[in-house]
Amino acid sequence: MIRRVCVVGAGVIGSLYAAHLARVAEVSVLTRREEHARALAEEGLQVSGRHEFSASVAAAADPAALGDADLVILATKGIEVDAAASRLRGRFPGAAVMTVQNGLGAEEIVQRHGPWPLVSAVTFMSGTRHSDTHVEYILDTATWLGPYGGTPFELVREVAELIVASGLRAEAFPDLRPAQWSKLIFNATVNSVSALTGLPHDAHFAAREHVSDLGHLVHDLVDEGKRVAAAAGVALHDDPWEMNVLATQRGSAHYPSMLEDVEARRPTEVDLITGALVREAERTGVAAPLHTAMYRLVKAREASYS
Amino acid sequence: MIRRVCVVGAGVIGSLYAAHLARVAEVSVLTRREEHARALAEEGLQVSGRHEFSASVAAAADPAALGDADLVILATKGIEVDAAASRLRGRFPGAAVMTVQNGLGAEEIVQRHGPWPLVSAVTFMSGTRHSDTHVEYILDTATWLGPYGGTPFELVREVAELIVASGLRAEAFPDLRPAQWSKLIFNATVNSVSALTGLPHDAHFAAREHVSDLGHLVHDLVDEGKRVAAAAGVALHDDPWEMNVLATQRGSAHYPSMLEDVEARRPTEVDLITGALVREAERTGVAAPLHTAMYRLVKAREASYS
Repeated sequence: MIRRVCVVGAGVIGSLYAAHLARVAEVSVLTRREEHARALAEEGLQVSGRHEFSASVAAAADPAALGDADLVILATKGIEVDAAASRLRGRFPGAAVMTVQNGLGAEEIVQRHGPWPLVSAVTFMSGTRHSDTHVEYILDTATWLGPYGGTPFELVREVAELIVASGLRAEAFPDLRPAQWSKLIFNATVNSVSALTGLPHDAHFAAREHVSDLGHLVHDLVDEGKRVAAAAGVALHDDPWEMNVLATQRGSAHYPSMLEDVEARRPTEVDLITGALVREAERTGVAAPLHTAMYRLVKAREASYS
Repeated sequence: MIRRVCVVGAGVIGSLYAAHLARVAEVSVLTRREEHARALAEEGLQVSGRHEFSASVAAAADPAALGDADLVILATKGIEVDAAASRLRGRFPGAAVMTVQNGLGAEEIVQRHGPWPLVSAVTFMSGTRHSDTHVEYILDTATWLGPYGGTPFELVREVAELIVASGLRAEAFPDLRPAQWSKLIFNATVNSVSALTGLPHDAHFAAREHVSDLGHLVHDLVDEGKRVAAAAGVALHDDPWEMNVLATQRGSAHYPSMLEDVEARRPTEVDLITGALVREAERTGVAAPLHTAMYRLVKAREASYS
């Protein structure tokens, strides 16, 4: 029975989980910055957009200042997982840890820091962070969860039910990999193309009329990703090309996080997203020249910051 | 005997030709902007850097205001060739026209506007434009020239000798294509990679230590270009990979024009450079997936301006 949840990282996704779950559980938030924790503890979390409410949460920048938990949701960026998990060492002995990063490999990293049962998740929610204590809930799409390693499916179901009870959408799968890989291929394609071209995820990504149209490249990248998935023995849950076309038909174009990262000259998650796909291609002996090219281009873009 | 030269376009390359040639010929400059022509006619052209001198030139923004010429040097950007050549229609009946644009295809465009004998050229000079009447001469590398269509080689040699007499470096080749294609492959690779990554042409372009290193992609792009050249029946004059390595070993990293273009949110020459290579690949039935990807990415980057 999950009564106490600790959310690690209060960006958009962490804030949305923390505020909603605070309506059905006792929620604490572990932040990186001291003043962020202070603001959350004093003002609580305000949600606007699709849902409008405020929630009270406990918060600290020091894990020792937080009580125990039954569930830890690790909601940092992928590149921060290692540092965040190392801060949890020896803490939360009775908790399961849920990862929700883009790409592949967050679970392996967490596993190196403690013996917690692990829940894999991918989320399609989106929002905008207006301040340390105010998040706007934009796309109310689901979080998908699955067991990792020997975690019992019953525990995954319980987490999914708690998230649904809190007002968010969630679904538990006995095997998350088909969904995780659909999102991986989608993300590797859309994020890297967006980061390099400066285009938000708009109609250009589906255009295949002229030879110079971007949709041809997007389609080729998706096809390459599908060949890697097949070689890895994964039958995809959704077709990433259809996900791409559907997403570009929404009213307003989404700004992929990797585009925001390169525009702010921050490190991106490319190693965990495109890099993961390239490593899987290498492991399974499948050629992935286009994703490998995108990987090197985004890494070089990062190198241009200095 | 070439006594009168008209230079069309007074960017870096046009200004360097005009100023130097004014020391050995009668030079007029055709500009796009009226005030540019006025400034050149009043103040002349100042050269600094490797050479230091001032030159007097005639100048006008209206071709009808210029006298006849024996040689017209079309020194506009590739994307301006069609407009520039159309302004020459019916003019300069006794002149040969020399093109010096990056990529392929400028000669075909000029040919549609008049019956002038054509001289193909590629130049490796570089400089910086400090004002409408002041250009700094930086890299004193050569201009290579060759006949186009039925142009006699003797005429090409005469043009090369005039350029050399003016103080610049030049060499005439009976067949320019081997040199032109070496530069095409080099430019298609370096310019598109630079435009997408934001990196000037620096040591990253030759690095091949780690799997994520950019040099692997640069090498793959060069190899793909070589396969297209071979299919087109062209034996390259220089190995573009060696050109790349040598250039990155110079002291200061060069800013490729396509990087300057995307940073200023201007249209690039990608259609004439990478686009030309992609069209040649299509024509000769050679696969060019990486250059095709770069072409679509740069076109999408241009689409992001609006």
